[in-house]
Amino acid sequence: MTALSAPALAAALRDIGARRYHHLHPFHRLLHEGRASKGQVQAWALNRYYYQVMIPVKDASLIARCDDSAVRRAWRGRLVDHDGLDAADGGIARWLKLTDGLGLERAEVTALARLLPATRFAVDAYVHFVREKTLLEAIASSLTELFSPQIISERIAGMLANYDFITPDTLAYFTSRPAQATRDADFALDYVQRHARTPPAQQAVLAALQFKCDVLWAMLDALHHAYVAPGHVPPGAFVPTPSDMQSARG
Amino acid sequence: MTALSAPALAAALRDIGARRYHHLHPFHRLLHEGRASKGQVQAWALNRYYYQVMIPVKDASLIARCDDSAVRRAWRGRLVDHDGLDAADGGIARWLKLTDGLGLERAEVTALARLLPATRFAVDAYVHFVREKTLLEAIASSLTELFSPQIISERIAGMLANYDFITPDTLAYFTSRPAQATRDADFALDYVQRHARTPPAQQAVLAALQFKCDVLWAMLDALHHAYVAPGHVPPGAFVPTPSDMQSARG
Repeated sequence: MTALSAPALAAALRDIGARRYHHLHPFHRLLHEGRASKGQVQAWALNRYYYQVMIPVKDASLIARCDDSAVRRAWRGRLVDHDGLDAADGGIARWLKLTDGLGLERAEVTALARLLPATRFAVDAYVHFVREKTLLEAIASSLTELFSPQIISERIAGMLANYDFITPDTLAYFTSRPAQATRDADFALDYVQRHARTPPAQQAVLAALQFKCDVLWAMLDALHHAYVAPGHVPPGAFVPTPSDMQSARG
Repeated sequence: MTALSAPALAAALRDIGARRYHHLHPFHRLLHEGRASKGQVQAWALNRYYYQVMIPVKDASLIARCDDSAVRRAWRGRLVDHDGLDAADGGIARWLKLTDGLGLERAEVTALARLLPATRFAVDAYVHFVREKTLLEAIASSLTELFSPQIISERIAGMLANYDFITPDTLAYFTSRPAQATRDADFALDYVQRHARTPPAQQAVLAALQFKCDVLWAMLDALHHAYVAPGHVPPGAFVPTPSDMQSARG
């Protein structure tokens, strides 16, 4: 077995995305095509909020184990993106504009008490992965950002077109993300291309991206199971009000 | 807020079980009532195998952080129960008799490559909980064993009565477990009653049991979603052969 060239490694990573990234999940199609009820959009935003709040914890965990000042400096930008310059700025604050716009109480969202347990387990698995695997694998697991600009552009267009409870202001999170994600993915891809030079290292990089696709997929599986079909909400998790469970398009 | 008496704490723990233990989950009812197909039983056994192999890792993690020799000595029995005295003995070996009896290849089961990612995330969350929370919470999270003898007796009776591919020999795991679980649950309940004397400690104990119920519930939610309804198997996970997906009772 010989090592892949840098372009071949990038192609193999993109192939994983083409087959396993969550743009293929039925819940996302439902969400983007306007077939989700307001309650389903609420459940998605409330659960995804846990992912948002844990991303800077994940990134700080990565920085904390990195002995290369240049990598730490570059990765630090992600903390700024998510935590912002003050409480009104950054990705977490912008996600709360979305949950506000959907009519969810901030206290209910930020208490994290109505999450699906499976959301918590999947997101925490990502944080533990970054803490426990090699730095190379930790960096590689961020590479789903190679694929996020496309899904975000579809989401903005689809949600604005299809839901009267969605406005450009509530989607502020997504308008900021593609440029950040592209910058971050370029850095991470360059890092793994330079550091994964042997077949075992390249296999580890590919497995890390597949793991991360599994995290995102499992989050949508849990939402779909609880709020779409068969619609079994686990004990204690968020229950939309019945009037919000009617589909946007009937 | 005053502390609960020891019997009141036990009653509060049993109340969580009555409301949130996975005997209430639709997948278990399907399994026990003979309405599961062989493929669904295979998927359950293959995924639950990961829980079985991680239980001794969880227990060793608990022993590793315990500075009380008497507790370590008592907890050590759990390692013997699961890992056995030799490779043919113990709970993991007995679980493989079940997967053998269901016609699954041992290599496929033990490779862990066809697990639902959600199974891995939920089980790993349990291991991390035991490593990261207080020793009291780690011990309390084992208390689902208060409820397992009943579910196991229902499972043995229901599975033997309803599935021609299940024999007493393939269910050897379950015939050993109730006595072990009762002994272990008695020890753990006594420990938490003696050590959780303040309201915050008691709340932490109750939350630990609730967390553990969430782990077991999430495992069944993932199985139900993938193999029952709507039947969306995540990329890369086990797919039963079509002939094994016909219900045992048509």
